[in-house]
Order: sequence, then C-alpha cells, then structure tokens
Amino acid sequence: MTTEEPAVAPAVAETAADIAAMRTRGAATIADAVAEALATQARVSEADGVEAFRAELRAAAQRLYETRPTAVSLPNALRYVLRGIDGETVTALRTATIDRAEQFQADLAQAQSRLGEIGANRLRDGDVVMTHCHSTDALACIESALADGKAIEAIVKETRPRKQGHITASDLREWGVPVTLIVDNAARRYLDDADHVLVGADAITADGSVINKIGTSGLAVMARERGVPVMVAAQTIKLHPDTMTGHSVEIELRDEREVLTESESVEILGGEDDPEFSVANPAFDVTPPRHVDAIVTEHGQFPPESIVTLMRDLFGEPTGRPWEP
Amino acid sequence: MTTEEPAVAPAVAETAADIAAMRTRGAATIADAVAEALATQARVSEADGVEAFRAELRAAAQRLYETRPTAVSLPNALRYVLRGIDGETVTALRTATIDRAEQFQADLAQAQSRLGEIGANRLRDGDVVMTHCHSTDALACIESALADGKAIEAIVKETRPRKQGHITASDLREWGVPVTLIVDNAARRYLDDADHVLVGADAITADGSVINKIGTSGLAVMARERGVPVMVAAQTIKLHPDTMTGHSVEIELRDEREVLTESESVEILGGEDDPEFSVANPAFDVTPPRHVDAIVTEHGQFPPESIVTLMRDLFGEPTGRPWEP
Amino acid sequence: MTTEEPAVAPAVAETAADIAAMRTRGAATIADAVAEALATQARVSEADGVEAFRAELRAAAQRLYETRPTAVSLPNALRYVLRGIDGETVTALRTATIDRAEQFQADLAQAQSRLGEIGANRLRDGDVVMTHCHSTDALACIESALADGKAIEAIVKETRPRKQGHITASDLREWGVPVTLIVDNAARRYLDDADHVLVGADAITADGSVINKIGTSGLAVMARERGVPVMVAAQTIKLHPDTMTGHSVEIELRDEREVLTESESVEILGGEDDPEFSVANPAFDVTPPRHVDAIVTEHGQFPPESIVTLMRDLFGEPTGRPWEP
Amino acid sequence: MTTEEPAVAPAVAETAADIAAMRTRGAATIADAVAEALATQARVSEADGVEAFRAELRAAAQRLYETRPTAVSLPNALRYVLRGIDGETVTALRTATIDRAEQFQADLAQAQSRLGEIGANRLRDGDVVMTHCHSTDALACIESALADGKAIEAIVKETRPRKQGHITASDLREWGVPVTLIVDNAARRYLDDADHVLVGADAITADGSVINKIGTSGLAVMARERGVPVMVAAQTIKLHPDTMTGHSVEIELRDEREVLTESESVEILGGEDDPEFSVANPAFDVTPPRHVDAIVTEHGQFPPESIVTLMRDLFGEPTGRPWEP
Amino acid sequence: MTTEEPAVAPAVAETAADIAAMRTRGAATIADAVAEALATQARVSEADGVEAFRAELRAAAQRLYETRPTAVSLPNALRYVLRGIDGETVTALRTATIDRAEQFQADLAQAQSRLGEIGANRLRDGDVVMTHCHSTDALACIESALADGKAIEAIVKETRPRKQGHITASDLREWGVPVTLIVDNAARRYLDDADHVLVGADAITADGSVINKIGTSGLAVMARERGVPVMVAAQTIKLHPDTMTGHSVEIELRDEREVLTESESVEILGGEDDPEFSVANPAFDVTPPRHVDAIVTEHGQFPPESIVTLMRDLFGEPTGRPWEP
Amino acid sequence: MTTEEPAVAPAVAETAADIAAMRTRGAATIADAVAEALATQARVSEADGVEAFRAELRAAAQRLYETRPTAVSLPNALRYVLRGIDGETVTALRTATIDRAEQFQADLAQAQSRLGEIGANRLRDGDVVMTHCHSTDALACIESALADGKAIEAIVKETRPRKQGHITASDLREWGVPVTLIVDNAARRYLDDADHVLVGADAITADGSVINKIGTSGLAVMARERGVPVMVAAQTIKLHPDTMTGHSVEIELRDEREVLTESESVEILGGEDDPEFSVANPAFDVTPPRHVDAIVTEHGQFPPESIVTLMRDLFGEPTGRPWEP
Repeated sequence: MTTEEPAVAPAVAETAADIAAMRTRGAATIADAVAEALATQARVSEADGVEAFRAELRAAAQRLYETRPTAVSLPNALRYVLRGIDGETVTALRTATIDRAEQFQADLAQAQSRLGEIGANRLRDGDVVMTHCHSTDALACIESALADGKAIEAIVKETRPRKQGHITASDLREWGVPVTLIVDNAARRYLDDADHVLVGADAITADGSVINKIGTSGLAVMARERGVPVMVAAQTIKLHPDTMTGHSVEIELRDEREVLTESESVEILGGEDDPEFSVANPAFDVTPPRHVDAIVTEHGQFPPESIVTLMRDLFGEPTGRPWEP
Repeated sequence: MTTEEPAVAPAVAETAADIAAMRTRGAATIADAVAEALATQARVSEADGVEAFRAELRAAAQRLYETRPTAVSLPNALRYVLRGIDGETVTALRTATIDRAEQFQADLAQAQSRLGEIGANRLRDGDVVMTHCHSTDALACIESALADGKAIEAIVKETRPRKQGHITASDLREWGVPVTLIVDNAARRYLDDADHVLVGADAITADGSVINKIGTSGLAVMARERGVPVMVAAQTIKLHPDTMTGHSVEIELRDEREVLTESESVEILGGEDDPEFSVANPAFDVTPPRHVDAIVTEHGQFPPESIVTLMRDLFGEPTGRPWEP
Repeated sequence: MTTEEPAVAPAVAETAADIAAMRTRGAATIADAVAEALATQARVSEADGVEAFRAELRAAAQRLYETRPTAVSLPNALRYVLRGIDGETVTALRTATIDRAEQFQADLAQAQSRLGEIGANRLRDGDVVMTHCHSTDALACIESALADGKAIEAIVKETRPRKQGHITASDLREWGVPVTLIVDNAARRYLDDADHVLVGADAITADGSVINKIGTSGLAVMARERGVPVMVAAQTIKLHPDTMTGHSVEIELRDEREVLTESESVEILGGEDDPEFSVANPAFDVTPPRHVDAIVTEHGQFPPESIVTLMRDLFGEPTGRPWEP
Repeated sequence: MTTEEPAVAPAVAETAADIAAMRTRGAATIADAVAEALATQARVSEADGVEAFRAELRAAAQRLYETRPTAVSLPNALRYVLRGIDGETVTALRTATIDRAEQFQADLAQAQSRLGEIGANRLRDGDVVMTHCHSTDALACIESALADGKAIEAIVKETRPRKQGHITASDLREWGVPVTLIVDNAARRYLDDADHVLVGADAITADGSVINKIGTSGLAVMARERGVPVMVAAQTIKLHPDTMTGHSVEIELRDEREVLTESESVEILGGEDDPEFSVANPAFDVTPPRHVDAIVTEHGQFPPESIVTLMRDLFGEPTGRPWEP
Repeated sequence: MTTEEPAVAPAVAETAADIAAMRTRGAATIADAVAEALATQARVSEADGVEAFRAELRAAAQRLYETRPTAVSLPNALRYVLRGIDGETVTALRTATIDRAEQFQADLAQAQSRLGEIGANRLRDGDVVMTHCHSTDALACIESALADGKAIEAIVKETRPRKQGHITASDLREWGVPVTLIVDNAARRYLDDADHVLVGADAITADGSVINKIGTSGLAVMARERGVPVMVAAQTIKLHPDTMTGHSVEIELRDEREVLTESESVEILGGEDDPEFSVANPAFDVTPPRHVDAIVTEHGQFPPESIVTLMRDLFGEPTGRPWEP
Repeated sequence: MTTEEPAVAPAVAETAADIAAMRTRGAATIADAVAEALATQARVSEADGVEAFRAELRAAAQRLYETRPTAVSLPNALRYVLRGIDGETVTALRTATIDRAEQFQADLAQAQSRLGEIGANRLRDGDVVMTHCHSTDALACIESALADGKAIEAIVKETRPRKQGHITASDLREWGVPVTLIVDNAARRYLDDADHVLVGADAITADGSVINKIGTSGLAVMARERGVPVMVAAQTIKLHPDTMTGHSVEIELRDEREVLTESESVEILGGEDDPEFSVANPAFDVTPPRHVDAIVTEHGQFPPESIVTLMRDLFGEPTGRPWEP
C-alpha cells in the first residue's frame, strides 16, 4: 500500500462540482448523477488491484458526499451502490459496481410512477384529498388514480410562506381535478370534508418521523383529531440512513423576506431596525409516526414505525459514513 | 288597548339606521349605542300606562335588533337592559330602564380593562405567549401584565388571509414586547417555546364553544397535543345568548380575493373562468370547550363548560327573541 | 302538636297505589300525577295550622316517594313543588302549593316540544343523525327540525337486545326521514357518514354523566374518536337530584331471555342447566361528560359539566330526601 | 366622617397574632377563628353609625387577612361573612354579622361529615380506592362508607417526600380497611386494581384546577389513561375565590432536606458545596379539570368545570380584596 | 417457444372449479388445495424446458387465482410456493415446486396449534378474555392456555347480526370455560372486568390494519379507552400481500335479511316497498394498528405496525399478481 | 448413536455454577461468560462426529440456560452463538462456534459505547434530560453527547424505593452535568422543563413493550401527555427473544423492607402482625410501545413497534428453547 491519494476520475470531480454549485439539484437528479459517477469511476479506473480499486471508489464517494452532506438522496445513492459490490478481481468489482449503479438508476427512473400506482390503490372513486405544499410524489398518486378511472377531488392548502399550493392547484386543474383552495388556517374546518390527507416528504427518519414542509405536523395532528387518515408519498431516496444512528435532520431556517415583505415590515416597525423583532421561518417540521397512517414508497406501503426495516434492507446496517465499511 | 303601533323614538330609529348602515360598528360600540337608545326611548316616552310603555320599549328593541340580527353584542345589550325593568308605574319603569342602561354602559366602559387585569393574573413574569389574529381583549391582558411589571414575550402568528398578526406585532412592539413573527404553518413547531396560547373571541356559545378567527380551533388542538394551555379573552358582550336555545352561529364566508390575488389566480388558471376551481374563505371557526382551558371575562375567569352559567346570570333564561318575555 | 299521623288525602293514596302498581308509568306521566296529587292534598287539607299543613304535605310526599324510590322523575316533581311553598297562613300555603304544582305541570306539558325546538337548532339542513334506542325527546328534535323545513337523514342502530331502533325507524319513516338501519356493531363504520349522534337519557347525574340505554357510552366513545359531536336530549325531569349528594344510579339487570331465546340457549348448552354460563343484561350504562358535547333540555342546552347548575336552580341545594328541609 | 383609624377589637388583634404566629393553624381552624373574630368585632363595637360600624368590620377583616394572605380558607371566611351583612342600623348590622358568622361556623363544623356522606355515596361495596398523601376530607368519605356497611380496600401511595401515606395507612388500618402500601412509582401498575382514585385538595381554583400534594396531577393523568375515575374531596373553604380574578396559586418550595438527608447528600457530592446540584421540592402541583371526574364538597358533588358556580354562590362576584365592596 | 397455451393439469382445473363453486371453502382449506394443485401441476408436467415448465406453473396459478380473487389465503399460497422455485432443469424445478408446496402444507397444518401456544403465553392464570365473533385461531389460544393448566374466563359478545358468539360460547363451555354472554352494546360496560380483548382476523393489511367481523374496530377503540389490551390471533395465510401495493380490502355487503326478518320489516314499514329505507350490513370493518396491541401468528407475535415485515419475509416484495415475477 | 449423556466440559459446568450462585452477574457479564463457555465447549470437545458435537453444544446450552431461565441476556447469548453454527465436519463446527462466540463477545464489548454514540445524536446542545433509575446504557448517551461538546442538563428522579437516582446524580455531577434532583412525584411538574425522557431497560419484548424499573410506564404516560419524547437506551442483549412466542416477562416482587423500614412499620401498625396490611414492591413495570418514541441500541435506533425485526435478525425465528432447532 502506498501513501498516494487514490485517483478520482475527472468525471466524478465534475459531478461533484455540479452538485456543489447547485447546477445539479433535486433529490432524484442528484441521486442519479451520483450513481452514474460511481459507475464512471469504475469504468475508467486503472487500479491494479482490488484494494486500490476499492480505495478509489471510496475516495470518489467521499468527494461526492462532501459536496452537500445534508442532501438526503446523496448518501442513499452512495450507500446503495457501494454495499452491493462484491468480487475478487478488479474486473469483477468493476462489473459489480456498474451493475449496481445501473440497477439503482433503473429503479429510480420508475420509482415515482411505481409509487403513484401504489398510492392510487389507497384512493377510492369519489374521494376528497387534502394536500399540503407541492409534492410530485404525492401528485403521482392522484395522477395514477385518475388513470385508473377514479374521480378525485382536492382541497388544496395554499402553504405559506411560499404558497406552493398554487402549483399543486394548477397541476390538479390541468388534470381536471376539482379544486378548493384554502388558507392553511382553514385546514381543520375542511378536514371534515376530506377522506385523506396526502403529503410528500423531504426526508424520513429511522424513528419513523416525517420531515416535510412546515405545517405538515400540525396538519397531521388535526387529521388524527378529526379521524382523517394521513398518507405520505415518498420515494426511498427520501429515507435518511444517517438517522439510523440517531442523527437528527437539520431544519433549514429560510430568509425572513419569504414571510414579510419590505413594505409590511415598514408598516409594523416604522422602518427602523428593531433587534427585538424577528421572523422565524423554518422550512420543515417533524411529524412523529403516531400521527401518520402509511408511508407509500415504490417498494410498497409501510406503517411509519416499520420504515426502518426498509431502510436497513436497502442501505444496510448503519455505519459512520457511506464509504466506511 | 289600541291597535296603534307603539311609538318608537326618532333617536332610536336613527341609532338603528346607523347600525344598519355600518356607520355604528364594532361589538362594544353597537352595544353601547343600543343601551343608549333604550334609555332615550324611556326618557322621551309619552306612554300613558305601564303596558304602553313596555310596548314601546319592545318595539324599540325589535327595531334595533332587526338591523343586524347576527351581531352578537346587539341582542346582549337588549336582553340585559330589558330583563332588569321592574316597576308598577311609568315613572318607575322609566327610571329602571335608564338605570339599567347606564349600568350596562358603565360596565361596558370598563370591561376591557377589568378583563385585562384578570387575564394578566394568569401570566407569570417571563412567560411567552402565542397569539392568533388581533384581539384588543387579548392584548389588554398582556398590557395589564406589563403594567404589573411582568416581562412577556410573544410569538405572533401572521394569521392569513388578512394577516392581522401584523397589527398585533406592531402593538406589542410599541409596548416593548419582544416579538417573533411566524407563518401559521409554523405554530406547532413554536408551541414548544410557548407558555400560553392567548386569543380573543368573536362569539362564545352556550355549549362552551369559542367562535373566533379561522385557525383558532386548529391552534387549540395543537396546543392540547403539545401541553400548552389555551386562554380566551372575551368581554361578556361576546356571549351569545341565542345559542342557549341551540342556535348555532353562522360563519361568514368572505371574499375569495382575500386569499388569492388576481395575478395569482391567473397564474393558476391561465386567466380563464373555471367553475371547478373555487376558493373557500370562512372568517371564523369553532373551537370546542375541551380544547380551551379558560375564558377570561370582566366578570372573572371560567372554564368554557360553565360559561353558560354566566350567560344565564347576565341575560336570563333564554327566550325566542330579546324583547319577548 | 299531637302525635297523630298527618292526614294524607285519599286521592294521594290512590295515586301512590297506581304508581306502585305500574298503572301510572312513564317519567312524564308519573311526574304529572305526583304534582297533581300534591295540589290535591293542598286543596282538601283540613289542617288547622301552618305546621300541620306542612306535615301533611311532607307525609303525602313521602307516601308518593316510597312507591318507586328509583324513578328519577318522581323526586323531581316532589322537590320542585315542595321547595317553592312559602306563606304564613294555611290559605297562603294552599295557594302556593297549587300554584307551584300547576306551574310544574304546565312546564312539563310543553317541555318536550320546547326541547325539540332547541335541539332542532343544532341540526342543519342536510344533516345525517345517528340514533340509539328510541327516545321521544331525541325524536322531538328531529321532528322540530323537519317542521323548520330542514332535510334530515338518519342512521338507526337497531339497539339490541330489544331492538327499539325499529320503533325509531318506523317513526322516522312516517315523517319521511330516509333511514338506514344498522346493527349496533356497525356504528363505528357509519359514524364516518354522520354529522351528529343524538340520544335521549334515562337519567342525568350531578357529575354530568348520562345514564341511557346500554350501548350509549360505547357509541359516545367511538363518536369522539371519529370526530362526531354527541347530543343528548333530556327533559329536566331526567335530572337526578339525588346524585348531587353523590348517589349513583342503580342499573337494572333485566331478564336473560331478552338476550337469549330458549332455543338459542338449548343450542349453546344442550338444554342442560349450566351454572357457569350466564347472560348479563344491564338495561343502561353510564357515559361520562367528556364524551358528550351538549345536553338539550327545555331550559336550553348545556355542556354536561354544567348541568348541575340547572339541577340546583330547579331543585335546590340537595337534602337527604325530597320532603326533608 | 373622621380621619381616625377605625377601632379594631383587641380580640381580633389577638386572633390575628395567633394566626400570624402559626399558633392557630389548619384550614378549618383558621376559618373558624376568623369568623369568630368578626362576630366579636360586631359584638363589642361601639360604632355610632352604620358607616363607622362597616369601617370597623373592614379594618378587622384587613387586619386578619394580612396575617397570611396565601391561606386559602382565610379570605373565604371573610368573604362569606362580610357579603351577607345587610341592615340599616348598627343593631341590625351587628345581628346580621353575628348571624352570618355563626352560620359559617355551623356549616364548617359539619362540613367534613356532610362531605364524607356525599363522597361515600360514590363508593360501592367492595370497591378498591387508591389514595395519595393524607387528607381528612378524603378519609371522611371512606369512614362514612364503612359506616354505611360497605367493604372498602385501599391501595395507599407512600407519597414522598414526607410519606404522609403512612398516616393514611395507619388511619385506615385502625378502621379495619385492608391496606396495600406502594411506592409512588408503582401507581400505574396498581391502578389496574383500583376502582377510584380519591384525594383531597389544598385549594381549588376558578378554572377547575385542583391544587394538591405534589404527585396528584401525574396520578390523575395515569388514572385517566387506565380508565379509573378521579374523585377529589374538598370542603368549600378550599375553594379559592381570588382565582376567579385569574390569580394563580403560588406553589411553596419546601426544604431540600425533606428530599435528601445530609448523609445522602454527602454520598452524592462527596460533602462539598456544589452550586450546580440542587434539589427542587415543590409542595403541590396543579391538576387540570379534564383529568378529574368529580369534586365532592359539603354542598354536593360537582364536575370540576362547574365548581366556579359554587364559588360564586358562596363568595359572590370576585372583587380585589375580601373587604372591598 | 410456441404460441400454444401452456398446459394446465386436469387436477388443477378441478381444484379451481371446486373453489369457484364454493365446494372448497375456508381460508386454510383453500390454501392447502392450491398448494396441492401446484405440486400436482409440477408432478404431471410434460414440459420439455425450463421456460415451458415455468409457463405452465404460471398458467396454473392464474387459473386458480381467478376463481376467487378476493380470497386472502389463495394468493398467499400461490406466492409462497412460486417464489421459492429455483433450478436450472425441469427436474430441479419439479422437485423445488413439490418441496415448496409440501413445506407450505406442513406449516399450514400446524399453524393453528403453534399460534395457539404462542397466544396462550400472553394469557395468565385467572385472566378474563372478551371475545367477538367466532374465530378458531382465537379459540386455539384459549384452548392452549387451558392445556397449560391456566384458568380462563370469557365474556362473549353475541356478535350481531349472525350471533356467532353463540358458537364461541358453546365451544368454551365444552372446554369448561365459565362464560358470560352479553349483547354487543354491553361491551364497554364489561371491559372493566376483562384483562384482554381477543379476536381473530379475516385479513391483515400491510399498513397494519386488521379486517375482521363488523364491530371489531369499535371494540378496539373502547378497549383502548378502558385500558384493556387487544390481541389478534391470525395465521399468516390471513396476511394480505396485495395490500403491500396499497390495495384495500373490499368489504362484502351481506344480505339485509341477516339484520331484519320479514316480519320485523313489515312492522317497521307496514309491508310496503320503501325506497328510502335500507339496511346496511357490511360483513367486516377495519381496525387501525394504533388500537391493536399484538398480532399473534404461528411465526410469533408482532406489533401490528411491523406485520408488514413478516409479510415481506413470507411472500416477497410485492408484485402485480402472484404469478408475475 | 448411543444413549450416553453428551459430555459437557468442566469449564461450562463451572460457568453455570458461577451464574447460579450469582458470582457471575449483570446482563453483559453473564452474556459474555455464556458465549465464552460455548466456545470452550467447542474447543475441548472430543466428539467424534457432527451429531455428537452438536449434542454436546446443546447440552452445554441447556446446562447454562437452566441456571437462571429468566435472565434475559443468557438465552440471547445462547441463541446468537448456536444459530450461526454451520459446517459438515467437527472441525468446521468447532471453528464456526468459536468464531460466532468471539463475534458475539466483540460486539458486546463495544455495544455500550456504540449505543452511546447513537443515543447522543438524538440530544442537542443545551437539552435537558429527565432520567429515571440508574442505567449505564442511558448514561452512555449523555457521556457521548458531552464528548461531542454538547451542554446537557439533567433532572434526576430519585427513583424510590432504592433511590438509584442518587447514583445517576453522582455520575452526572462527576461529568460536570448540572443536576436537579426531584422526588418521583414531581415528575409531571418538571416535564415542562425537559426536552427528553431518557431511560434504560431491563428487557424489551417482541410486542415492543419496555420492561424497566417500576415507575417508567407512568413517566412515559406523563411525558406523552406533556409532549416530551421518550427514549430508551438498551443494548440488544436486553431484547427478550422468548417474548416472540408470546411469553411475558415475569416481574420480580422484591422485599417489603425496601419500601418500609422496621420503625416505619411499627409507627403504622403499632408493632403487631397485621395480615390485612401488606407492602407491594414490584421491581419493574411494562411500558407499551405507544408511549415510547425510540429504542436506541448498538445496531441503531428503532421505533419500539419494529424492534421485533431486529430481534429476529439477531436471534432467528423463535423456537421453544434456545438449544432446540
């Protein structure tokens, strides 16, 4: 063994740079690029031995990981590919790596539509669905239900501060789904008219909690009080393997100006700096599993309390970092 | 007895017209004007007998009542004054009516500050209060606590669609209260930092429910789940005596444009009429008593389940209409 | 004062005998007869002094009471009449007794229709009501709502063992109310389609509990879990003043044969005596106040936790027995 | 009117001194002494006019009140006596004061036994009662049930830190009640064997909360979770009228040494001063009304949510201080 | 490869016909017949290649499946046998198929007694069990507990409409278990006397819900409120693998005449057709996992939230249909 | 095969004797000794065939098991080692046994520190943790959080009867953690100041229940009511594989004198024998999974409802006894 740094392929470095610079973004896009980069590393490797080959892969994984260590889909892609690589020759390892990456990419490519079919099966003809924020995974369930010939109606929460509910409303109207738009404050009142709450997820943790757009946890609490089941649509790239080791997900605090415009601020404060006035604008909140009825993934639906099992099946016993054994 | 209509004083007719035209508005202002009008009716009455005098008062009450039959404080003022009128001569009745009206007005004039003192006693030095909407009754509690030398901090929900939380924030900053402004969706997250939820009321019903700005009931459900007590500040003119006879309070549906601007609408719908898209914008919702810990009035604090007792003490056994015996 | 027994009028003795022999039955009928008997006692009394007159009334009350000490409406009538009797001459007492009895009877005569109007106000046009057992008080609410022009639908639980739901269904169909009949086991499933649970009461206790047909308490628990409000319709003769002093209401255990026919019994046990097999057939159960949203009486609606206030208003501070001061 | 201080009788001053010096102690003893002092003041007064007489009574009340402003029974006695004093001559006022004081004392003298009879009615033959701390009001219920011939068993929580459960156990064994003593930690386990939780109260507030020995609120939460009803036995001198105006009850923090002996402290800390180690030893906690089923007083039983009604009946609309009108 | 239909053995067709005609019925009997049929198909196959052999097996599976696509045990048997078939020659595949079918049948044959032993371990000597409907799986637990020498008592709900509780009572009495029979309405009252609720299942879904005889879900809600644990006994042939893909289980609506006899109907409706009167008679309802404490299978006990794990272990990652890869 | 008893190595017998005599005690120490004993048995075996070798291992396992059949870690060690032994020669089996035992011991040696790292990840800088009893697993989480540079404070319940909270307090003060010591009764009051409840476990069952020091289940119920998450720290040797087959864990009843000193007993009972007075002193209680948020093990964190999955992964499908196949 030498003390040389293992060689990381230029294409890997480019992918890493694209992710770091946010040129590559979105959970699925990042995951796909990362799997591709590992396959490329395997393809172009000139390693002369099994250990050297593995060292290169680990170096590539680490390089990719460190671009955005909090992006949930990135370590998922790394863990999935790396843990399936077995072989006793460089050739065998190369093939295994490429196969594993391709399998990951193929699964990823059809994950949303598969998830949509599964989620659609929970919806009955004539059901009314209440949505929060905008989630393509959640919408895939409705789209698939429509394709099955079911009539679906939607109550769409506007989802302050960024009002992504408007995008949801627009998509649903395009598909012909009747829409009632409400402010977030009206949720409990309209839960009496809803058969399901349907949301997506930014991340799902090993203790079964759902990290999603701020307001989700309150909606879930109200839905339980009103007797309405809560369904979370989430591809498995949203399962957060680091949480198996107890790590919590850091909640981003976003710009105050999403909440308060300049002119509104002047109206409240008279245009002066006020150190005792602040706007708190967390992007997400945490919904405990007891307020969620089912998590729908492309591998089937699960009670939130057992999603850790799927996490372990896909990503293995948790280790410190994705590239560590 | 003749079949003539009982004479209603011109001043009563004017008051009625002002209320009908919304020139006189606000729960307390209407109640005060109504009591004044009954006193005036008594003062100027030329009735020549007890029955005639009573008939005039009833006619005046009916005239006033019919201007805005859903305004909660209006029947309260009528019931309060009318039920205290006893006497066996016109003179005695006149005096009784004027006394009763003056007592009502005097109580009303100091109701908010008295209520504020009582509510302040529930707040401890250093407490953090979460507010919803803008309520001068609720703010009177904080103001009084500040006057008692207590330090209070506030987490202010913006309260879509009309963002009255901005007014609350502005008032509180004027009094030196540190304020954290949040979107309504962030309420459950920040309840962990709050010692109280403090809201006002638009009306309170005989079954102990609180009618208040849309979003109150969801906030109360979340507060119970998080272990935070909920306190409602409401002068007794908000107690709705008609609800003793089972009547429910009609919830106003407000203009869609409070929720969706013209340009937002175009973005969603492409500028076309869309009969299957609607905005639902109820002004209020109903919080059941089991999610409220105390209702603070100028007559003291009450568990919501016993507010009906105060209602009966003030306004008597329920009858069909305020002027009916 | 002599040691003679106070004279009880023959008509009182007759009424007592009729009640004891179940010739006079039904809560309202008994209450009316008892008030009438006290008035008669007052009318025919030959007492020569205030004390003697009062002693006769007490003796009459005791005679009536002891016929069926567990009938809830009987002590109510006694307490209501006796506590309103003031006067300093026999004549004054006689008049007071008769007046009080007549007032009780007049109130009683219109109690159900008044209660129905109040209960009807809680029902909205288009509402679906789930019923349990057969209660004319509960049905009066629906009847009054229909008279107000509201469309009401009903889900009727059959209410084993005696299937009084069939009577309810028959009454409702006569009035044109669409009916879905279900077995009691199907209640939770159909609560999702109901806007109200509406039941009557056999007795209401000072701690706010509702004693009603077996199955009521389970229905109320399920309704709370499903988010459906529970409304109890009960004339004030069902308020049980003895429970103010902590007495609990004894629950009748009824005949096994209501549950199990002879032939069913043979099928299970092969026709032999089996000391280790029994049928338990309680007539009523106890629903705690936290599972009930409102009690509707002819004096207005109340949260169950404050019904004790009405009880005290009507029947006074509790004493040992109705005729004891 | 002069500017002289109103004359306070020497006997009143003595009573005040005895209370201040804790020579007179215990809620009932203090209340009795205070009523007696007011009667004495009335008896010995040399006031020459109605106003002077009233001024003396107010001065006496204030003197008594200020000895221990947080003792709940003291203001109760003052309020009860003072609010019943009407009359237009000194003689009339004197008589009224003495009558009112005597009535209060007479009621007080039989309050516990009356309360015991009422509480006993909630207990059935064969019931198992779980107790917390030592309360003579609570024990009076069991004693009365035994006198009624009911068999009662008890599960007695030791009630750290002062283990007053031992006194409860000793009393119960004296009366022949079978006792199982448990540590407080075992409460949830043994609730499965209990038919009632039965506790006393140090104070009861207008919002229906029960202030009682530390541990009561947790026991009530567990009892609700286990389906066991909670019964609070409290004479009306425990109703805290100041809480009608929102005042909360201050919770005494007691000596650390009740929790930790000197030698235990040495074992933990090695005998050194440790500013970052502390013992928190609050005497009481607050149980919200939703975890309590009934409050039993000598005036009957009440749901905790309606105890405020009794408070108002006995002590009137709340004012700032007991002697203020 | 030819375009010929794969040959399905005559014995398979016969089995399919028997199932379709309900000559073969009962979850275990169907499952056994289906496994046997696949083994027979393997034994008699004249397929000349691996692909042809597999095509025949798939065709046989499809034929069997389509007889009763909603019978839960049928797809289970197919999935279990088919997913274990590996081999590279027809001979190897034949052996594998037969082995797999035999293993399934052997497991099935002892599933109930194994499950009974496991369930019995949850019951303690002296326990009282409340039952709903008639389930041989549930009874196997009691039978095994009796065999272990434990004394068990039962409270048996009659289970309208078909009163299968009578069969349960009869079985239990035969084994010497003391039985108290109650109407379904009396369940909450008698839960206070029960240590367990014990029921079977018609199907168990991937989200942990239990599909069982109508009334189960209400019983589970009441049991949670009363603090009584709920235990579901279900062989793994009741696990519904289709629900892994979100499919819900269709609830059969049964004949109205199970609920209402002809004569009862006449009594209600007067013998006329009444389009606004209907009887709703669903056979089953859905109990969410949060109201169930344990599911006992022949593979051990599981919290309902993790039963999906067992489902995946036994039947694999979900696919569209049992015979699709 | 002969009928001779399989030979158990003298070292195994010694280990068994040490466990039986409590010379070897503590869950981890016992588990380590048992694994070592099986390895020794394998090393010294003179078995001349695979069957004989296995028989010896089984006999050794049985000997060890029967020393303390209720010690949870003992069967765990046996099951873990025995289920991993495959091989077709004695040599292969010997190696496999030794390897498996060494792996178990190696995992065990680092389990607590690994668990501590995982648990620490759930704690944030500045968090306040409430503890119950003394658990080195729970403390390992705090120790690891401190090592990560996080500031942690603790509220320590004294944990009657044995006050192991004092040991916890002492350990925490040694590490510089600020400590507030409270009596167990004060838990609900101080939960308002806590961010986590953190406890260990004596055993964890297949249905997700946590067996831990008496008082844990009540604390968990109160924590849920107050909105505080509950975290259980437990190495996998605490997972109780026998509970997969429904067995419940027997709760030890400890000496009365832990609860009541001789002198306290005399004070209560006057020094006489009293057959109707008893002290109940269970060592542990059972917390159902719905009151626990996460179980932290050295294999990661799990919702309690899915711990059965880890149990099956580590110890296999449940069998009757650890040595039975």
